[in-house]
Amino acid sequence: MKITSVPIQELGNNAYLLAVPEAGEVVAIDPPRDIDLLMEAIEATGLRLSWTLETHVHNDFVSGCRELVAVSGAKLGASAEADLHYPWERLQDGQELVIGPYRLRVLATPGHTPEHVSYLLIDESGNPMTLFSGGSLMVGTAARPDLLGPADSWRLASELRRSLQDKLLKLPDQVQVLPTHAGGSFCATGTGGEPSTTIGKERSGNPLALVADDTEFAAIALAQKPYPLYFDRMRSLNQLGAPLIGRHLPKPNRLNVDEFETWLARGAAILDLRPGHAVLRGHLPNSYAVGVDGSHSSWVGWLISPERPLLLVSDDQTQESESVLQLARIGYDRIVGVLDGGVDAWVAAKRPLRHFGGSKARELEQRLRAGERVIVVDVRESYEWFGGHVPGSVNLPLHEVTHGADGLPRGPELAVHCGHLYRGVLGASLLEQLGYDHLTVIEDGFDGWAKLHDRAGVAR
Amino acid sequence: MKITSVPIQELGNNAYLLAVPEAGEVVAIDPPRDIDLLMEAIEATGLRLSWTLETHVHNDFVSGCRELVAVSGAKLGASAEADLHYPWERLQDGQELVIGPYRLRVLATPGHTPEHVSYLLIDESGNPMTLFSGGSLMVGTAARPDLLGPADSWRLASELRRSLQDKLLKLPDQVQVLPTHAGGSFCATGTGGEPSTTIGKERSGNPLALVADDTEFAAIALAQKPYPLYFDRMRSLNQLGAPLIGRHLPKPNRLNVDEFETWLARGAAILDLRPGHAVLRGHLPNSYAVGVDGSHSSWVGWLISPERPLLLVSDDQTQESESVLQLARIGYDRIVGVLDGGVDAWVAAKRPLRHFGGSKARELEQRLRAGERVIVVDVRESYEWFGGHVPGSVNLPLHEVTHGADGLPRGPELAVHCGHLYRGVLGASLLEQLGYDHLTVIEDGFDGWAKLHDRAGVAR
Repeated sequence: MKITSVPIQELGNNAYLLAVPEAGEVVAIDPPRDIDLLMEAIEATGLRLSWTLETHVHNDFVSGCRELVAVSGAKLGASAEADLHYPWERLQDGQELVIGPYRLRVLATPGHTPEHVSYLLIDESGNPMTLFSGGSLMVGTAARPDLLGPADSWRLASELRRSLQDKLLKLPDQVQVLPTHAGGSFCATGTGGEPSTTIGKERSGNPLALVADDTEFAAIALAQKPYPLYFDRMRSLNQLGAPLIGRHLPKPNRLNVDEFETWLARGAAILDLRPGHAVLRGHLPNSYAVGVDGSHSSWVGWLISPERPLLLVSDDQTQESESVLQLARIGYDRIVGVLDGGVDAWVAAKRPLRHFGGSKARELEQRLRAGERVIVVDVRESYEWFGGHVPGSVNLPLHEVTHGADGLPRGPELAVHCGHLYRGVLGASLLEQLGYDHLTVIEDGFDGWAKLHDRAGVAR
Repeated sequence: MKITSVPIQELGNNAYLLAVPEAGEVVAIDPPRDIDLLMEAIEATGLRLSWTLETHVHNDFVSGCRELVAVSGAKLGASAEADLHYPWERLQDGQELVIGPYRLRVLATPGHTPEHVSYLLIDESGNPMTLFSGGSLMVGTAARPDLLGPADSWRLASELRRSLQDKLLKLPDQVQVLPTHAGGSFCATGTGGEPSTTIGKERSGNPLALVADDTEFAAIALAQKPYPLYFDRMRSLNQLGAPLIGRHLPKPNRLNVDEFETWLARGAAILDLRPGHAVLRGHLPNSYAVGVDGSHSSWVGWLISPERPLLLVSDDQTQESESVLQLARIGYDRIVGVLDGGVDAWVAAKRPLRHFGGSKARELEQRLRAGERVIVVDVRESYEWFGGHVPGSVNLPLHEVTHGADGLPRGPELAVHCGHLYRGVLGASLLEQLGYDHLTVIEDGFDGWAKLHDRAGVAR
């Protein structure tokens, strides 16, 4: 028996493969929509994929279960309450799937979502070995119970507490815990870099383990950060079933400048996949600066409608394939092409480039102290801004720029920044689309400012 | 010589009258637009109003200087840089106005606004006695330098520091300081209940006195709260000159139900002047719950366009005259009438009332713990929310409700609250206007919740 974790890095998730040679079977748990890597790993075992299981209806990515079923004939297992609109094995609390000498026991663990289940791997002697906990138990935390909206969050928080405290943490100390959500996932806060844990460690160290009162538990479990807008579409998309894309992701068409402009005229959005510094120096007008060196798909899913055709601009094909992969994972399939030859081809065709001024926090401070008319626009989230910010800065969180920039005057220079660089460049690119044309990006962001000032000179 | 302060309570301001019998003169400083009380006080002295002075072009109220000039023939004095579009004496830094044996020395003290001046009263022996400091020096603080917008805030903060530290705080210790802005003014944070102070006290105790560095000063001086939207119109209104209203404020027309409805059909807004508890029990549909027991004019000026005709609903004429007074002070003159007979007349005419459910924090908690589908909407400012809130609550600051409620689902009950009651009822009234029809107000607000929980059960 062997368990392999398959990280989905940009989402902070892990899928799992449980290979049981004695049974000739492999079981997949929470697979992503791009199944090629999983299938390669399965094929390398020489075993047959018998089950592809969901711990829950995912909010952050398109499930790959139906893709795996389509290429392998595996059975799709999910909670009986998952309300899927395609065939699935309706798993009940306590039900056991027999995998050769092992069993996978289904444990109803509602909270992160109402239909959430965990899978407990039990060995031939009846000893619980490993818990595939999804989001119901994570390293030092649990996944947020607020993703179905504020009207259901208290009920789900209460269910999460009971799933966690009355069910999962009653398992034996030595049971290994393999969560689907890990560090970097928008589905949780408060988890670190460790991918796995044990019941014993969590029972003594998880802050959510000790709070017996529902209100106190809610105060911790519902203290969450904003999450990408596309999350609100994922649950129903996963229940209805996203379009099947097959084992291999499509390669985007390569477009010449004229073809590219034809799509622009049809309302396509330009995704600039390059690093922020390259975007600063020159980019196609009205691009989204969503480089693949940052939370690419999260920001695309936060800022751009899934109906909108997408055009890619990149330095190289590595960036393109990373974008196609990440966007497929969140159900963005409308990539209509990539600019052949990139920015160089655009310039060679005598099309205009835009650029942003680049500056450091130290220069910004000198200019502010000299009384220059510069508006500092801080595109970090409000909770970051309230933790400390450049004095006098306007807080306009990145996901609110497009609808919330009304109050910013048109004349003066806007010096845009985030913590470091990524969101600052993206924020400037959004402001450019709104018609602001005097844009500077503070390249070292608030990190740079805070280094100059420690505490003094940082407004709270 | 006698100085009388005239409080303008809802704005947290004071106007001043300086009566100098030896000269037969009275000088008014920063008078509000309603001049009747001032004129009564002036007439009681038996002296002649010789000057009406501005410390600055006000952002928070309509100046009464032109009104005083119109009824008294006094000279209007303001900074030479005030850019007024009507006759005024252009006062220069260092210039002195002779008032019998006394002199009023003009001190340019830019910062709160660019043209800000202070007036230093000097006695016959040349000793400085009293400083009318406007906003350039307040009890424990100074007025905010950010009201002209973020592009100018650093320059003005730097000027404020120099006005304060290099000019005003160089005056002798015993000089009395009489600021225009005081506790409760949106023009400043960090001032308490004391209306006056001395240079000596401020030199040792004012946090802004000790910070020699412009960046550190900006970090304090620019850490300000949101201010009412109407502020952005006041500066130019005061420079252009608001319409003259004369010594006595108009009495609003009394309208019967049919006349009232005619104005409603023309797009008039209903201001419900009654206390929150009365509004809860029953109110005219689509009213603004802006009782005169709270920051009435600030909220009207924040939420309603000055072009919109206003209809009043009240319990009594005291509420009506308070509203007329407060609204005149911020330039809202379009009160087209008051509902004769109030809510009773409306009901007698068989017109519908709306009401909000009332509830206490304790009941809310019980319902949340029982898993009821209630969305807690916290209409306090973000800085208040980040200081502690009901777990899972949605923060929708009152002034953002009208444009920012998109994300709130239509089905579930919304339990609206502020710190206590006033803004909660107003928030519910805004949500009612947006078509939300299942609205409860938590009558003891976050204060009530926090009392139940101290820290646990309060999310941060």
